[in-house]
Amino acid sequence: MDILEKTITSIPEPSKKIYQKALQRLSEQARPAGSLGILEDVAARLAAINGKLDVDLSSKVIVVCAGDHGVIDEGVSICPQEVTTQMVYNFVNEGASINVLAKHAGAKVVVADFGVNYDFEKEFPIIHKKIRKATSNLAIGPAMTRDEAISSVEAGIDIVNALDGEREIGILGTGDMGIGNTTPSTAIIAAFTGIAPEHLTGRGTGINDEGLERKIKIIKKSIALNKPDPADPLDVLGKLGGFEIGGLAGLVIGAAARGIPVICDGLISTAGALIACELAPQAKNYLFASHRSVEAGHRYVHERLDLTPILDLQFRLGEGTGAALAMELMDASTRVLTDIKTFAETSIYYEQF
Amino acid sequence: MDILEKTITSIPEPSKKIYQKALQRLSEQARPAGSLGILEDVAARLAAINGKLDVDLSSKVIVVCAGDHGVIDEGVSICPQEVTTQMVYNFVNEGASINVLAKHAGAKVVVADFGVNYDFEKEFPIIHKKIRKATSNLAIGPAMTRDEAISSVEAGIDIVNALDGEREIGILGTGDMGIGNTTPSTAIIAAFTGIAPEHLTGRGTGINDEGLERKIKIIKKSIALNKPDPADPLDVLGKLGGFEIGGLAGLVIGAAARGIPVICDGLISTAGALIACELAPQAKNYLFASHRSVEAGHRYVHERLDLTPILDLQFRLGEGTGAALAMELMDASTRVLTDIKTFAETSIYYEQF
Repeated sequence: MDILEKTITSIPEPSKKIYQKALQRLSEQARPAGSLGILEDVAARLAAINGKLDVDLSSKVIVVCAGDHGVIDEGVSICPQEVTTQMVYNFVNEGASINVLAKHAGAKVVVADFGVNYDFEKEFPIIHKKIRKATSNLAIGPAMTRDEAISSVEAGIDIVNALDGEREIGILGTGDMGIGNTTPSTAIIAAFTGIAPEHLTGRGTGINDEGLERKIKIIKKSIALNKPDPADPLDVLGKLGGFEIGGLAGLVIGAAARGIPVICDGLISTAGALIACELAPQAKNYLFASHRSVEAGHRYVHERLDLTPILDLQFRLGEGTGAALAMELMDASTRVLTDIKTFAETSIYYEQF
Repeated sequence: MDILEKTITSIPEPSKKIYQKALQRLSEQARPAGSLGILEDVAARLAAINGKLDVDLSSKVIVVCAGDHGVIDEGVSICPQEVTTQMVYNFVNEGASINVLAKHAGAKVVVADFGVNYDFEKEFPIIHKKIRKATSNLAIGPAMTRDEAISSVEAGIDIVNALDGEREIGILGTGDMGIGNTTPSTAIIAAFTGIAPEHLTGRGTGINDEGLERKIKIIKKSIALNKPDPADPLDVLGKLGGFEIGGLAGLVIGAAARGIPVICDGLISTAGALIACELAPQAKNYLFASHRSVEAGHRYVHERLDLTPILDLQFRLGEGTGAALAMELMDASTRVLTDIKTFAETSIYYEQF
């Protein structure tokens, strides 16, 4: 808890002065004011975070947080739990979707085990942060203890600290893997927003109408039974969460504390980011939303976080895939800010727009 | 006309067999079916166009078509006409938005003059296809003659033929520059769709409410006066168009005839693509929509073309900027198709999704 509190209090504020300077340069470029839409805001925020206009995002890292979930006993997923382990192997063998899209974006993929129901050899090339082999079933009691919730968040912080070393990360992406994890994520979003699970619940990997009804009931039951306190984010995480969701929250807090911009991916990553920002509202200054997925709850958590997703490609995958693609656009936004000439720089033009 | 007709009739059909093969591979990958949304359709279409699953889009070219418009006499833009010329210089000097975003995407920028109101030296490094120095004012008569309309489209075809040489282009992007050109583009979309200009007209580079009212009136007047025949696309282009819009149509037809996928940018590029597909419906098989801009008419022309824009970044710029960014995602889609492993290829997994 000491680590968590210290990390939260150490989150610096991005430079307001550089933010204004960035907006001014963007407005002076030889094109209609505001004509590069969302990219302009992204560029200005990245500049403020970095304390300079010329931002270098070339060092890109995506951390895929994996964990298993006791709630799959309730039939909330069409996939058996073993798929989580199998996909961890697929990540390590570089054959999964995130490997392909991260490679395209020039990002390194790091896989972290927060609670997969499998004993990986300690030499297996992932980050070993297992809290426990799967959470407890949140439909019949708390998913984890409060101490486990803290440990999962602190493990996420620890990962960023270790990976960043001598301030090496330009941008951090967050991704997830965990069969059943749209259920706890949706429950967390419902607990914080008060929005009825009927509006928030999606089909995950592809449950049918009957499965969707069941999933909504389980989410409602888990909230009614566990009574999470939305004013106490660790209570919400502990009662409804997943170990990898705690880890995802830790990544956001850890990145913010080190002044690293962090981009969240799908529903689960964004639920983790929500936990982070409920714990540390100032972390939001470092947070970007990569995309809006087809999961029903995703737009509501973006609204609560006041984030505009960069992409809407109708993804429903996770792993950090949307984060990888959005990183390419964030990278482009840094070039927009510095390289598009202003009227003054082109000199032959009047300020006519 | 001979060139145009011959080019249209030579447009080949993409491979249905490869399209099906691509869909099958995508569905067998170790991830939930359809979970990569829009990128899956893009990947399958690109494969069908190329007649193979392993598509190489590394050779990217964006052609920015420039032209001036007599209709600016009606006060439809806040920019003076000279800005078109100045921006052509800015493109050549590589300081404009499209230069920066094309560089990020690894695309080459080619600038073509179809009707800029300026005498460029013949050594000036652009493609010289000037039909006339600005169109006539479409609010008082036809923008151009039918022969000029044909010449502008054929000039676009000619550019693709010359640039592609020995089949060198992997993907062609289209972009525009021309002060006043949202007015003819919107008029063209209104003529084909029959949708009232009130619903289609946007603010271009940034006219105020009064200017918008005036622009809507001018568009209505130009249609009422010129009576373009929507069954005759060259009549619509001639009466309401711009020389660069004809050129943009020619790029699409020329690319389709050579089996090159072509991605259109903002309202003007898409209006050009609409002319192309009204002339040659089979060209649509080669066409991709990069983004949805904030121009009101853009969504309607996408609907008419039955295209789903890849991005929605709230751009309102043109030049090919959205096309450049979308090319990066199209490129990623080609890796999705070939590099994400199937259940069979990973071998350790069951077919469980």
